Amino acid sequence: MDRRKFAALAGAGTTGAILGAPAIAQSNPEIKWRWASSFPKTLASSWPMMQAFAQRVGELTDGKLQIQVFGPGEIVAPLAVSDAVQNGTVEGGFTATYFNFGKDPAFAFGTAIPFGLNTRQLTSWLHAGGGLKLLNEFHAKYGLHFVPMGMTGAQMGGWYRKEIKSIDDLKGLKMRISGIGGQVLQRLGVVPQQLAASDVYPALERGVLDAVEYTNPFDDEVLGLHKVAKYYYAPGWQEGGLQAGHFINKQKWDSLPERYRTAIQAVAVEQDQAILTHYDARNAAALKRLMALGVELKTLPRDVLSAAYKENLVVLDELAAKSPDFKKILEHYWAFRNETLLWFRVAELGYDNFVQAEFARVKR
Amino acid sequence: MDRRKFAALAGAGTTGAILGAPAIAQSNPEIKWRWASSFPKTLASSWPMMQAFAQRVGELTDGKLQIQVFGPGEIVAPLAVSDAVQNGTVEGGFTATYFNFGKDPAFAFGTAIPFGLNTRQLTSWLHAGGGLKLLNEFHAKYGLHFVPMGMTGAQMGGWYRKEIKSIDDLKGLKMRISGIGGQVLQRLGVVPQQLAASDVYPALERGVLDAVEYTNPFDDEVLGLHKVAKYYYAPGWQEGGLQAGHFINKQKWDSLPERYRTAIQAVAVEQDQAILTHYDARNAAALKRLMALGVELKTLPRDVLSAAYKENLVVLDELAAKSPDFKKILEHYWAFRNETLLWFRVAELGYDNFVQAEFARVKR
Repeated sequence: MDRRKFAALAGAGTTGAILGAPAIAQSNPEIKWRWASSFPKTLASSWPMMQAFAQRVGELTDGKLQIQVFGPGEIVAPLAVSDAVQNGTVEGGFTATYFNFGKDPAFAFGTAIPFGLNTRQLTSWLHAGGGLKLLNEFHAKYGLHFVPMGMTGAQMGGWYRKEIKSIDDLKGLKMRISGIGGQVLQRLGVVPQQLAASDVYPALERGVLDAVEYTNPFDDEVLGLHKVAKYYYAPGWQEGGLQAGHFINKQKWDSLPERYRTAIQAVAVEQDQAILTHYDARNAAALKRLMALGVELKTLPRDVLSAAYKENLVVLDELAAKSPDFKKILEHYWAFRNETLLWFRVAELGYDNFVQAEFARVKR
Repeated sequence: MDRRKFAALAGAGTTGAILGAPAIAQSNPEIKWRWASSFPKTLASSWPMMQAFAQRVGELTDGKLQIQVFGPGEIVAPLAVSDAVQNGTVEGGFTATYFNFGKDPAFAFGTAIPFGLNTRQLTSWLHAGGGLKLLNEFHAKYGLHFVPMGMTGAQMGGWYRKEIKSIDDLKGLKMRISGIGGQVLQRLGVVPQQLAASDVYPALERGVLDAVEYTNPFDDEVLGLHKVAKYYYAPGWQEGGLQAGHFINKQKWDSLPERYRTAIQAVAVEQDQAILTHYDARNAAALKRLMALGVELKTLPRDVLSAAYKENLVVLDELAAKSPDFKKILEHYWAFRNETLLWFRVAELGYDNFVQAEFARVKR
């Protein structure tokens, strides 16, 4: 081959590469995003999964979508994450929608409402029942897009310094519980308190607080609440299935290449499963350790639960009267719950209750 | 710039591109894989998710890992999928591990065993309890690597032409049920039958078969079994949580770039959730439609369930005595079950049973 031909070919190749480069850059742009977190780095149940989320999204976009993760307070205060996402201080944040309850109670549905969908139902409503689409139509009014990641399962009903034998024992009780659950208990005589997690322990110790609603054995053990409150109550009527997740600035989300969105969605579901399975595999052992330390595991009396169930319906009606978005989403959510309760009663509970009873009897 | 300089630069650019190309090809090679399926294309609960799996894995690998999906019988018979993966006829297949039960009963654990882990427990055991690692050490002996995708939830106990009032009604009953469940019922007088799904309807219609174990309302409705068997029994004691998934040729899996494996794992979990949420959102409506057509929803009598529970323990012991792998995995699986039953009883069942009872009472 003579030099000119080679040069011409080489030139053609180079031109092709130059022409191709902008097209590749357009479809796979390099993007650097900052991510805030409402949840502490000390939680082994969620922080490693938050890191895995950022790492794997990067891996699946050839290192082009780089998510830099910050712990609570590092660049944004834990409860200000969605504000920071909304105003563009950060592109996204790992949080819970219901921290925005004060802005509109409809923000509760992305996390949990009392006596609402259990874990399986909530996941199903969000991903296969039209729930997530409906929520994100509402979140969009605040410039936010929600991507679920991190389900705790049914929580515990909380730590109490005194035994709760009947509904009368709730009168005047100072309890750390917020949102709809707090409003429900207020109607039963409880004085709901808002406290940061770090203030809970000393408040219980000094008797400024009588009870606290937190999470589940695996997380609660870390807080050490068993040292200052002996009675550990089930079930977590206020959060029968709790969903955490990412708020992403909607404008940023919409401008993302389709493939990057696919990476975020797939990895978020993968890590959603990682968080729930982590809890499901470790809560029993944590509960046993707590009981070995003298914690008394108790069930809330039926009259307390029934009264809370009744007052919850009143509170939901009141909130629906105040917020059109709450009303709209509640109707959709509640219809899904009522419909699916039939199936879960027949198949899942039929199976679970039999296995539990027979295991207790046969011991094997 | 004179021509020679330009040519030299162009040449350098080209050389760079040529040198770079093999490096890119090595880290992101183009790979075409063929995928067989044991499950029919007519199942709206899994086939669209199988297609989404292939499409999204392609999207997340820049179109480089191309998975071509074939329906059952198109290139491999439905129950021969794992053989075809093992001998390299196809690189992977969408199937259930327990179709290999005849080779070694330890293949059952990747799918379901009677009175075993429920859906949440099974997912947790696989992904957070060391179960999947243990299973794949066993599957590797057959040149197979398992990636879970597709959980049905607790199944129904089956369709019966006659009502089952006590354990005596099982004697001589010809039922389509295989694996460990079939061996358990055989010990109670049932004559277990192996039939392809397509043969079940005519066999029930002609009375050659008295009962059949299939899946859940959403899938069962498609088969039309309600036209030939009136009694629909819960719970699905034989499959309290059923996992489907992909068998991948282990040599092919091991040779895959890390990033492609990440894409497969993340998308498989995403579509695992898509399948379960699809069932959870639609089983109730399907069950209502079946009941409106005259199907009688029944619960298996307690003496039948208890007898099956007892015989199951005998069968498990027998299988453990025959297969060292079955024994090893059973010990791990059963320890996880017994441990986690405590937590699921306290939190999940405490919540679910109360909400069910109160909803039935309050009707809201």
